[in-house]
Amino acid sequence: MTAAMSSSIIPFRATLLTLYPEMFPGHLGFSLAGKAMEQGKWSLEAVQIRDFAEDRHRTVDDTPAGGGAGMVLKPDVLAKAIDSLGEDKRPRLLMSPRGKPLTQKRVRELAEGEGVVIVCGRFEGVDQRVIDARGLEEVSIGDYILSGGEPAALTLLDSVVRILPGVMGNAVSGINESFEHGLLEHPHYTRPQVFEGREIPAVLTSGNHGAIEKWRLEQAVRLTQERRPDLLDNAGDE
Amino acid sequence: MTAAMSSSIIPFRATLLTLYPEMFPGHLGFSLAGKAMEQGKWSLEAVQIRDFAEDRHRTVDDTPAGGGAGMVLKPDVLAKAIDSLGEDKRPRLLMSPRGKPLTQKRVRELAEGEGVVIVCGRFEGVDQRVIDARGLEEVSIGDYILSGGEPAALTLLDSVVRILPGVMGNAVSGINESFEHGLLEHPHYTRPQVFEGREIPAVLTSGNHGAIEKWRLEQAVRLTQERRPDLLDNAGDE
Repeated sequence: MTAAMSSSIIPFRATLLTLYPEMFPGHLGFSLAGKAMEQGKWSLEAVQIRDFAEDRHRTVDDTPAGGGAGMVLKPDVLAKAIDSLGEDKRPRLLMSPRGKPLTQKRVRELAEGEGVVIVCGRFEGVDQRVIDARGLEEVSIGDYILSGGEPAALTLLDSVVRILPGVMGNAVSGINESFEHGLLEHPHYTRPQVFEGREIPAVLTSGNHGAIEKWRLEQAVRLTQERRPDLLDNAGDE
Repeated sequence: MTAAMSSSIIPFRATLLTLYPEMFPGHLGFSLAGKAMEQGKWSLEAVQIRDFAEDRHRTVDDTPAGGGAGMVLKPDVLAKAIDSLGEDKRPRLLMSPRGKPLTQKRVRELAEGEGVVIVCGRFEGVDQRVIDARGLEEVSIGDYILSGGEPAALTLLDSVVRILPGVMGNAVSGINESFEHGLLEHPHYTRPQVFEGREIPAVLTSGNHGAIEKWRLEQAVRLTQERRPDLLDNAGDE
């Protein structure tokens, strides 16, 4: 293998299966992610699940077995949509409040891969049999309910795209952030020196780099203890 | 107060402070949220923070006091943007990975109010003094890092808008969902009866409503124990 071959970068490829392809790329079409897409550093394709319905009404959902409110996404239609992608080794996610909570660690793993296939559920849910049969990995972005998987998919992709190679202008600014070391980030300050009578903490303008680092770490630990003691309990898990 | 006055509904009003107003309404312009916006059930206004910078370069950020990578949003400029909203009793949120994790309970509280003001941070962070001086409530949508507050704000608003009065077509489908009872939701099934050799669990087609309810609760408890035992520990907190 030549040096040129080994260093070639395959752009990260995101494929969304959705009933609302018009929601994409949404906010990912702007700023950091939008520029990176224009530069070919990643790509996004939104596939309309409804195109795989075979009846003349293009039905994608049906009433839940056992009764109850809402509608359930049909397993046969969704399976056809997934299978239309052909041989595909990318992880297949299903955005779902029942899923494993998304972590920065999983974001990093996804960013290191060649891309991702994301199924966006709507209605009451997705038939369990297609989740099982197609090995969908259920992922939750948080403990709240959304109108569908689309806002969740856009959020997940934002977190992945920003750490793709060459996307962040200042690579260093990806390093020292909340969760990257299992701690919330310390407070930030900038000019003016005095804002409405509030001064920047003196240590930060002391020029003593050791003292500054110590202060920042203390603040990060204090904030994490106050706000997210659960992160300290889990230290090492990540 | 007349009956007409007391029953009038004031539409939910969201104001975003952002450096990327073009990211809004994003995915909220479509489907459920988009229709509700057209019907005047809620409104969204995106305010450009940069319009409140007073130097000729319209500077909104500066280097962090104490050194380090990234830039920090200036407190004076952001304070002016917030103050431009005038007398405003809506909760003021700052989307931030350092914030309190968003829960469905907080979503319900916000949906019951008259609206929300959301500051979307970018860069390395926001000067701590404006967070303190303007009483910003730091809210996190999950333990991962985004390119800015905008994707988080759009996600939060999606969860709030869907439960505003009159937004969901079938009001019942808002009730029995993950987190609404502190449990993950049970699996769903719909036709066909057999999908790739996999049958719908027999109990769901038995017509025995008591047995169906029992099965669903058992499945919800099992899934929550397997995937999110932390939710069981917190039962009662919500």
